[in-house]
Amino acid sequence: MRGAVIHAPGDVRFETLDDPKILEPTDAIIRTALTCVCGSDLWPWRGLEPTGEAHPMGHEYVGFVEEVGSEVTSVRPGQFVVGSFATSDNTCANCRNGFQSNCLHREFMSSCQAEYVRIPHAQGTLVATATVPDEGYWPGLLAVSDVMGTGWWAADAAEVKPGSTAVVVGDGAVGLCGVIAAKERGAERIIAMSRHASRQKLAREFGATDIVTERGEEGVARIKDLTGGIGADSVLECVGTAQAMRQALHSARPGGNVGFVGVPHEVALDGQELFFSHVGLRGGPAPVRRYLPELIDGVLSGRIEPGKVFDLTLPLEQVAEGYRAMDERRAVKALLRP
Amino acid sequence: MRGAVIHAPGDVRFETLDDPKILEPTDAIIRTALTCVCGSDLWPWRGLEPTGEAHPMGHEYVGFVEEVGSEVTSVRPGQFVVGSFATSDNTCANCRNGFQSNCLHREFMSSCQAEYVRIPHAQGTLVATATVPDEGYWPGLLAVSDVMGTGWWAADAAEVKPGSTAVVVGDGAVGLCGVIAAKERGAERIIAMSRHASRQKLAREFGATDIVTERGEEGVARIKDLTGGIGADSVLECVGTAQAMRQALHSARPGGNVGFVGVPHEVALDGQELFFSHVGLRGGPAPVRRYLPELIDGVLSGRIEPGKVFDLTLPLEQVAEGYRAMDERRAVKALLRP
Repeated sequence: MRGAVIHAPGDVRFETLDDPKILEPTDAIIRTALTCVCGSDLWPWRGLEPTGEAHPMGHEYVGFVEEVGSEVTSVRPGQFVVGSFATSDNTCANCRNGFQSNCLHREFMSSCQAEYVRIPHAQGTLVATATVPDEGYWPGLLAVSDVMGTGWWAADAAEVKPGSTAVVVGDGAVGLCGVIAAKERGAERIIAMSRHASRQKLAREFGATDIVTERGEEGVARIKDLTGGIGADSVLECVGTAQAMRQALHSARPGGNVGFVGVPHEVALDGQELFFSHVGLRGGPAPVRRYLPELIDGVLSGRIEPGKVFDLTLPLEQVAEGYRAMDERRAVKALLRP
Repeated sequence: MRGAVIHAPGDVRFETLDDPKILEPTDAIIRTALTCVCGSDLWPWRGLEPTGEAHPMGHEYVGFVEEVGSEVTSVRPGQFVVGSFATSDNTCANCRNGFQSNCLHREFMSSCQAEYVRIPHAQGTLVATATVPDEGYWPGLLAVSDVMGTGWWAADAAEVKPGSTAVVVGDGAVGLCGVIAAKERGAERIIAMSRHASRQKLAREFGATDIVTERGEEGVARIKDLTGGIGADSVLECVGTAQAMRQALHSARPGGNVGFVGVPHEVALDGQELFFSHVGLRGGPAPVRRYLPELIDGVLSGRIEPGKVFDLTLPLEQVAEGYRAMDERRAVKALLRP
C-alpha cells in the first residue's frame, strides 16, 4: 500500500509501505475511506517538534473494516467505522470514567495518512455506523474522529451551559468545531477570536454571534467590553501557545472555566495568578470515544456539519501539498482521498 | 481599643489602637466575640512575605454588631454575626455568580485580631444568626468565617461527589476542615496526608478513612496503591507550596479534580503536564459568603464541629503566643478571646 512518511521538517513523501497486518487479536485493519492533515501535524512539519527517524504520519480516519483479530466482535468486515486518534479498550478504569484518551492501553494513532491502517484495541476504539453512510457525510464523520471531538471536549471542559457566554480562542478547524459545540450546548453568546475573513464567515455560519479580531491583552479588553466587564463564562483554548493560553485565562470571568485542547507548547502557568483568578482549568487529549455515538448521530442527522472545515480536497498522493496549504494558511484543513 | 500589630517577622505586639469608626454608610462596627490566628498569618510572621510598615493583623471574626452605617439594613446592633475574610457587596456580577471573594468591591479583612472591627460592605458580608448562639458554638462559627469555609470550597472546587474518593493534602486547620467537607459531601473514602499523630486523630474523627504519612512522590505512590492504580477522584490542596501542589496534581486520576486553596507561593505549573494528566484545577480565595448560611446551619445543628481545630485558647492579649505556638506546630490553630 501507499502512505505518507515524514523524513524531515517540510519533507513529507507519499511512499510504498508494507501492508498493515493483524498483530494482536484485538487489532482490526481498515481500508481508509478518508483521512486528513491535522494542525498538530504541522508542529513536526515546521520543525517545532523533532521528526526523528522517518516515520508514517496521520491520526484521523474513517474507513471500511477489512479484517479483525480473533477478539474483536463489535465490528465486522465491510462495516463503515469511525474511531478516535487515541485507541482505547473502553473497559479500563479511565475509560469507565469517560477519559478514554487516557486509557491504560492507549496508543496514539500515527499512520493514518495511508490506504490501510491497523487499529489496535479495535473493539473499544471503533464505532460502526448502522449502514454505510452516503459519501456526503464522510467528511463530517472524519471530523468527528478528531477536530469535532476535540472542539466538543473543549466546550465540555470549559463547561459551556445553556444561556452562557463562550469565547473561542483559535480559528483553526478545532476552534471552528468548538463554535459548533458551544452552539449545540446552548451557549447564547459565542465570541470567536479570528482575523481571517473566510474563517470568520465559517464561525458565523457555525453559530458565532460576535467576532473579535484583536489579540493578546487588546483581545482580552474587547472580551471584557462584551461581557459586562468581568469576562466570559467559558473559554475554549484551541491553539496551544503561551499567548493563546494567557488570552484564554484572562478572558474568563472569576469562577469561569477554560477548556484547553491545543497541545501546550512552552506553556507555563503561574499558580498565584490562577489562584486569584478563580478560573477553572481542564485540558488534555479529547476523549473522543466518549462522544462518538452522539457526534456520529449529530452528523448523520444533519444537526451539525463539521465537515465544512475541510476547504481543500486532495488525492491522498498529494498529501504533501495538504501540509503546505495548511502551513501557509491557504487551507483550514486538507481532506485526503485515497 | 487594643489589637495585634505586626512590626517585623516574629514581632507581633498587642497595642492600643484607635477605635474603628463608621467611614462609609455601608460599614458596620462589630465587637469581637472571638478571633484567631490563621496559617496564612504565619507567612509574614516567618518573614516569607514582606511585613512592610507596622500594621494590624487578623481576618477571622465572629462578634456582636455595635453600630451600622445608614445603608446597612440586614443586620442591627446586638446581633451575633459571622462574616468572611473577604468583604462582598453580594450584589455585583461576581457575587451573583457565587464568587463573592472576587466581589468587584472586595476588601480583604486585615485588622480582626482586635477588640473591635470595622466591616466594609456589611450588608453583603455579614450573616446574623437568628438568636445569640450558646458560647459553645462560637468556635465552630469562627471556623466557618475562614478555615471551614475554605475547606468547603476546596471540596467544592475539587468536585467531591457522593461515593467518591478524596485526598486531602495538608493537615492544618484548612485541611482538617477539608476532611469535614469531603465527608459532608458524601465521599466514601477520604485519605488524609498527615505525619502528626494528633492531627491524624482529628482527621479520623472528622471522617478520614485512611492516613498516608509519606510525602512527595512516595506519598503519590501510596495514593495510587489505595486507588486502584489511577489516583483519586478529588484532591484538596490545602498548603500552597510547590511540593504540595505537585503532590496534589499527581494524586488525582485522569479526569479527576484538584481544588487548591493554599495561597500558592512560588508555584508554577507545566502546561503540557497538566494537559496530559486530564486533571481539572480550580482554586482561589474561598467564596465563604456563598456557603455561610449552610455552614452556620451545619454548626448550629451540631452536624459539623469545625471548632475542634482550635487546640489552643488564649486571651487576645497573648496573641503573639498564638503565632509562636502555630509556627512551632505546638498548636493547629489558636483561638483568641478578647
